Amino acid sequence: MMTNDPLLHPLLDGDRRALSRAITLVESTRPDHRDRAMALLAALPDRQALRIGLSGTPGVGKSSFIEAFGMMLTGQGLRVAVLAVDPSSTRSGGSILGDKTRMERLSRDPRAFIRPSPSSAVLGGVARRTREAIRLCEAAGHDVVLVETVGVGQSEVLVAGMTDLFVLLLAPAGGDELQGVKRGIMEVADLILVNKADGELLAPARRTVADYAGALRLLRKRPQDPDGFPKALPVSALTGDGLTRAWDEMRALADWRRETGHQDRARAAQAQDWFTAELRAALLARLQTPEAKAQVAALGARVAAGALPPALAAQQVLDWLDGT
Amino acid sequence: MMTNDPLLHPLLDGDRRALSRAITLVESTRPDHRDRAMALLAALPDRQALRIGLSGTPGVGKSSFIEAFGMMLTGQGLRVAVLAVDPSSTRSGGSILGDKTRMERLSRDPRAFIRPSPSSAVLGGVARRTREAIRLCEAAGHDVVLVETVGVGQSEVLVAGMTDLFVLLLAPAGGDELQGVKRGIMEVADLILVNKADGELLAPARRTVADYAGALRLLRKRPQDPDGFPKALPVSALTGDGLTRAWDEMRALADWRRETGHQDRARAAQAQDWFTAELRAALLARLQTPEAKAQVAALGARVAAGALPPALAAQQVLDWLDGT
Repeated sequence: MMTNDPLLHPLLDGDRRALSRAITLVESTRPDHRDRAMALLAALPDRQALRIGLSGTPGVGKSSFIEAFGMMLTGQGLRVAVLAVDPSSTRSGGSILGDKTRMERLSRDPRAFIRPSPSSAVLGGVARRTREAIRLCEAAGHDVVLVETVGVGQSEVLVAGMTDLFVLLLAPAGGDELQGVKRGIMEVADLILVNKADGELLAPARRTVADYAGALRLLRKRPQDPDGFPKALPVSALTGDGLTRAWDEMRALADWRRETGHQDRARAAQAQDWFTAELRAALLARLQTPEAKAQVAALGARVAAGALPPALAAQQVLDWLDGT
Repeated sequence: MMTNDPLLHPLLDGDRRALSRAITLVESTRPDHRDRAMALLAALPDRQALRIGLSGTPGVGKSSFIEAFGMMLTGQGLRVAVLAVDPSSTRSGGSILGDKTRMERLSRDPRAFIRPSPSSAVLGGVARRTREAIRLCEAAGHDVVLVETVGVGQSEVLVAGMTDLFVLLLAPAGGDELQGVKRGIMEVADLILVNKADGELLAPARRTVADYAGALRLLRKRPQDPDGFPKALPVSALTGDGLTRAWDEMRALADWRRETGHQDRARAAQAQDWFTAELRAALLARLQTPEAKAQVAALGARVAAGALPPALAAQQVLDWLDGT
């Protein structure tokens, strides 16, 4: 598809303002914006970044980790984008990344691009926007796209479904307690990083690493894992210890998956899933126009009054949709 | 809506064969059967039975309870229909009620109608079929429609969403153990019946009743509950003890809800929910025709190959649907 969108060339040249505006465009639900966004996305070349999903509950030091890890990557000459998926931020009206001062150095780094979570969106909408934002960040020449999510369960599975590898960040735990990490999250994690492995917490962090390494060994080995993965490692966002090792492991895993064809297969399956999710959402969106809502409300009142059987009322809405 | 369906009059006269065939009709997914089913449902008069949801895991004596409870009701001159919602039966290929010998006496009672769970259906399909089967049983003149479900979590909420009151059947537990009943099920239960309150199990059954009565008191009082509800009681399907009391409580609750308008409001809300569920299902069914599936598969292959953005592919399917 061709487009003469004025954002396209600045975006491909890596212009941060153009990228920012393009993401705002894909976040919009206005029909003309959607059309423009789809044309722009269709015109993007196939540039691929390493897509890393990152999850961690508040208190594990996620912002500090992203800042330290991101600075290490930009220090190696790599360009890094950070996107946030935070469905819970819709409640507070804020965003975990809205406060950029929590990543003060990284946000000023010319090789980094940080995008807060949209302030009002449902989980499904966040998923669409994030998938499209990842594509835009790749087209803008980023080498690594970090998709951050807060540990609230459902969002991890969504983010794992749009990234190449998934990292779970944890804090050192007391004793052998496994911090109530949900089994579903353990199952999507490729790498568990225990943060704050410094000072007084170094020994507890190492114990926590050993506990999780043990728990991971009990999980069934997945075909997309080379020997030794999933893995648990200690890191310190404060001292920087372990960050290089963590990055080496991520690259080793990503390289193996690329070479064995797992990454291509995973991305193809993710794109298919995204397509069917889009399709269902777009079809159901036909019930969300003001006219359709009025129609549903009117027939719903007759259904509630017992004057019309539900299945027949549903058929009448479909007939009405076909007639409009 | 008018219909000259030959099933209508025998059905309204309470003919069991006509009822059976009408339920088979609403279970069918053939488009001409669906049209006929919708016309038949639209022609039904507004006869109302007391709709009772009943849940209990295997081993609590559910079949014996239904038999004893059903026989008590028919003994009072009431007509009783028993429907089963058992999504798990799709796996075993059988049905909890398929084996009618487990309710040998009730199944031979002319005032009773027992319908096993359909042998192959997804949960959503079971829900539609059961809601429509309830309407048919009411139209056929039954006074009580008992909708039975096995205790597997999701189905209880579905059944509670199509009945007037919900009964949870339990077995006596050892000590003060609360049998791992899920909180969601406790929250929809109006009456907890502890079965097997006879012989050696009488004392444990009474203790279990006390434990549940205590647990129920901890739950927030719901606006649809009169004083004292939800309630826990002992019953014995073997001796019949407690069955009359249980029925008295059910009637007292139903009467109160009818008099205060709660039942009408609940039924209106249930019908509305059913309508919107039907509507979504019917709209999404447009993606399930062989032609649509072929279209989705062809575009999905291009999406997987990276040749087409997912959102654009979704739009192309919608355009194709509109053109057909």
